[in-house]
Amino acid sequence: MRSRGVLPQGREGETLDPADWDALKQSFHAAIDQAIDRLRDSREAPVWRPTPDAVKARLEAPLPRRPEALDAVLQRFAADILPFGTGNVHPRFFGWVHGAGNVAGALGEALAALMNCNVGGRDHVAVYVERQIVDWCKAIFSFPAASSGLLTSGTSMGNVIALASARSARAEIDVRRHGMGASPRPLVGYASSEAHSSVAKAFELLGFGRDALRRVPVDAEFRLSLPDLARLIAADRAEGRLPVAVVASAGTVNTGAIDDIAGIAALCRKEGLWLHIDGAFGGLAVLVPEFAPRLAAIAEADSIAFDFHKWLQVPYDSGGVLVKDERAHRAAFADRPDYLAPAKRGLAGGEPWFCEYGPELSRGFRALKVWFTIMTHGIDRLAAVIARNCRQAERLGQSVCAARELELLAPVSLNIVCFRFVAQGLDESALDRLNEAIVVELQLAGIAAPSTTKIRGRTAIRVALTNHRTSDDDLVLLVSAVREIGRELSSVSAGGSPSLVAAEEP
Amino acid sequence: MRSRGVLPQGREGETLDPADWDALKQSFHAAIDQAIDRLRDSREAPVWRPTPDAVKARLEAPLPRRPEALDAVLQRFAADILPFGTGNVHPRFFGWVHGAGNVAGALGEALAALMNCNVGGRDHVAVYVERQIVDWCKAIFSFPAASSGLLTSGTSMGNVIALASARSARAEIDVRRHGMGASPRPLVGYASSEAHSSVAKAFELLGFGRDALRRVPVDAEFRLSLPDLARLIAADRAEGRLPVAVVASAGTVNTGAIDDIAGIAALCRKEGLWLHIDGAFGGLAVLVPEFAPRLAAIAEADSIAFDFHKWLQVPYDSGGVLVKDERAHRAAFADRPDYLAPAKRGLAGGEPWFCEYGPELSRGFRALKVWFTIMTHGIDRLAAVIARNCRQAERLGQSVCAARELELLAPVSLNIVCFRFVAQGLDESALDRLNEAIVVELQLAGIAAPSTTKIRGRTAIRVALTNHRTSDDDLVLLVSAVREIGRELSSVSAGGSPSLVAAEEP
Repeated sequence: MRSRGVLPQGREGETLDPADWDALKQSFHAAIDQAIDRLRDSREAPVWRPTPDAVKARLEAPLPRRPEALDAVLQRFAADILPFGTGNVHPRFFGWVHGAGNVAGALGEALAALMNCNVGGRDHVAVYVERQIVDWCKAIFSFPAASSGLLTSGTSMGNVIALASARSARAEIDVRRHGMGASPRPLVGYASSEAHSSVAKAFELLGFGRDALRRVPVDAEFRLSLPDLARLIAADRAEGRLPVAVVASAGTVNTGAIDDIAGIAALCRKEGLWLHIDGAFGGLAVLVPEFAPRLAAIAEADSIAFDFHKWLQVPYDSGGVLVKDERAHRAAFADRPDYLAPAKRGLAGGEPWFCEYGPELSRGFRALKVWFTIMTHGIDRLAAVIARNCRQAERLGQSVCAARELELLAPVSLNIVCFRFVAQGLDESALDRLNEAIVVELQLAGIAAPSTTKIRGRTAIRVALTNHRTSDDDLVLLVSAVREIGRELSSVSAGGSPSLVAAEEP
Repeated sequence: MRSRGVLPQGREGETLDPADWDALKQSFHAAIDQAIDRLRDSREAPVWRPTPDAVKARLEAPLPRRPEALDAVLQRFAADILPFGTGNVHPRFFGWVHGAGNVAGALGEALAALMNCNVGGRDHVAVYVERQIVDWCKAIFSFPAASSGLLTSGTSMGNVIALASARSARAEIDVRRHGMGASPRPLVGYASSEAHSSVAKAFELLGFGRDALRRVPVDAEFRLSLPDLARLIAADRAEGRLPVAVVASAGTVNTGAIDDIAGIAALCRKEGLWLHIDGAFGGLAVLVPEFAPRLAAIAEADSIAFDFHKWLQVPYDSGGVLVKDERAHRAAFADRPDYLAPAKRGLAGGEPWFCEYGPELSRGFRALKVWFTIMTHGIDRLAAVIARNCRQAERLGQSVCAARELELLAPVSLNIVCFRFVAQGLDESALDRLNEAIVVELQLAGIAAPSTTKIRGRTAIRVALTNHRTSDDDLVLLVSAVREIGRELSSVSAGGSPSLVAAEEP
């Protein structure tokens, strides 16, 4: 069914602009209001619901040739897309490390889409907004004003950009020109066994190879072991390899552990290695007085990658990277062919261009949603969310310790709580299946969305708190739901009838 | 000055949500309307205006600690940001290759920001929308249903992803594990001397090194020379290197030249090389009957990267990549640590995850703005814009040839017209400066925004038509403005007084 059209039906020769701008605005408002209402009412809805098969089938429709009235497209969107999102806007979404977003940031994104700036370079305001965000990040991480940076899609790309800079700065050859194969000594780097998978993926992408990332053992609190790092560096040197970089984690993804950044920085200085910080979510805890001492040494690093879309609640996607040595950063990426020649005046001015600091030439105006988020809320208030989430994690950890059937599987160091439900008489393998089943049930019932991980081989229910909507009551509800579902599933299981636990077996 | 606040002033313990949702909606509407009005009235405004120094100074304000009312932030936006964009929404923006955007796409982006999905993986609707877009792209480029793909920030990242797949598929070792340095033979690839700079940047990033990208000479129409390609491959083999990939251009950035894709595909089959297409803007001309024959052989390629934000008018940023061999694609990127373990049921389902096909783990819902654009306009209408731009380029080329002071510097093959103003008595170097000055004057006066490039060493005024708002009259106006400014600047120059031409000298 097609409703009244607000975009013209496409006589050849026309633009894609609407015939009736006022009708367009009304459609825009109505759609926005619907999406805002869902945010307002998120607490009343299930955290997540599976996308119905009928919707999936409709989303297999072939490439449409003819136009469709915008209002008709919006009806499809309201019915088939809006209700079935990831769920991370809900107060009881605790899965992986997802930010919950914020409406001021979303408004910034909407305005950026209408402005349609290309922030790869040139002289226009979007470039100045992004520079301001980069400067704010320098202030947050106590990086010097002369350092460089840019916004990225997230920490994965930030890690790639920082490690490409490290590679260029530390290689014995011009690696951009001659490639990794030309290096007289193989280049190697270091990160803990708990470091994020994106670090290894960056090593693969950049041509180091995954094996060139030495995985350093961790201590009892899942922090990189400094003596082991020193030993591995010495062994690599002795065996003719060239150590170039260490990646320290400011908040590991499994447990929220914060590496001894000051200790690693001292070792890197002594050894002449580039220190990169993977600060995806945890780096921003430097804004919280309680965590600042353990994160202050980020200022001593050569680079840091981090996300705005996690703990700063900026809508996806938005991350950033800072590099202390601007020349090293630029030397890793700068390249301007004839058609991009700079000019002193006019639109081709605006030096330096962001495309000289990363792999992307066309770049969206992602800075505007960050700008709206920080301008509207102020950094103190955003930091208060981080602090509250950490206190919530601590209290959740205490609740877990106090509850008879629950077992804490890792120390709570930041905002991540890994625990499990333990039922009498189940072996480790059955406990793994039981806890996987509990998480699936919580998700399917729409009660809460934690995720799972493995802690020293055991399946953990993993609760990551990076959500400004989460209240303490939400965590009380989570604990009681885990216990209830756990008892239910384990009693069914013990009774020998076909159980959900068994059903989860591969 | 602070206006009435629509977001709460941040008592600790609160969410970042507004206290008054209705007031928030009103602010949202007003801001959106303002941005839409600018699009509606873009023709009446200068194409581009420099960002005033006072604005730049305000955008150097330090990190704000305290919240500010959303309406106050919006006032800053309206005064300091909205008027000073890149200019590519204007009908007479012809610089580089920028799309002009469209409001349906911008609405999609706004809704995506409010939904705040993370499309790295998991089982939610954004994944199915992105799969639909990928399927539509397969239909456009006649790729088989079994091929894989994902959306990217643009062709630069698409080239990286495709060439990483080629690298994994063709290397003699497990390059992800062992790195480029472990290859017994150096890996090399090929592209024409006119290929886009992002191809060389991809070779650098992936650790091949820039020199491993052999630059193949071009013919008189700026197309890769097949005999030279065959000769270079043979020479590399003879000298112990391993040829892995050829990158063919479906529309070069300088002149819009389309390589002989069918011929290159035949050679790649014979030689066992991976054929990647850089189709950034030109690939989509396959939708236009006139160009389809020259682009149909894209279907024979192993991969293609292209942009939605150029000739499909989707707001920045949005590109895509397709890889014919899904297993090769996945083998180049798949990696799932414990905390991302897949599940059969629940939110952790949804296999395969997009993060297994590229370097990013967190991924925004960029597919939604593409979906809104294609659903609303239909692909035929979007193709009609492409066809019209090509006809406009052809007519502009004819106007240039017919005008006494203008010289066409390259054949018009697609949508790009490179020409210059020629004044009697000026040598090549003075002509270069004169044409640079003409472009700067056009931009500063807000009349039009072409860019410049070098064609066989000569500075060209470069007009790229990827703009649905451009009318034929806009091009008439451009030609007459170029001639007028050219005469003015060259007469001043000839008169010996301090001229703008001289002022442009380095």
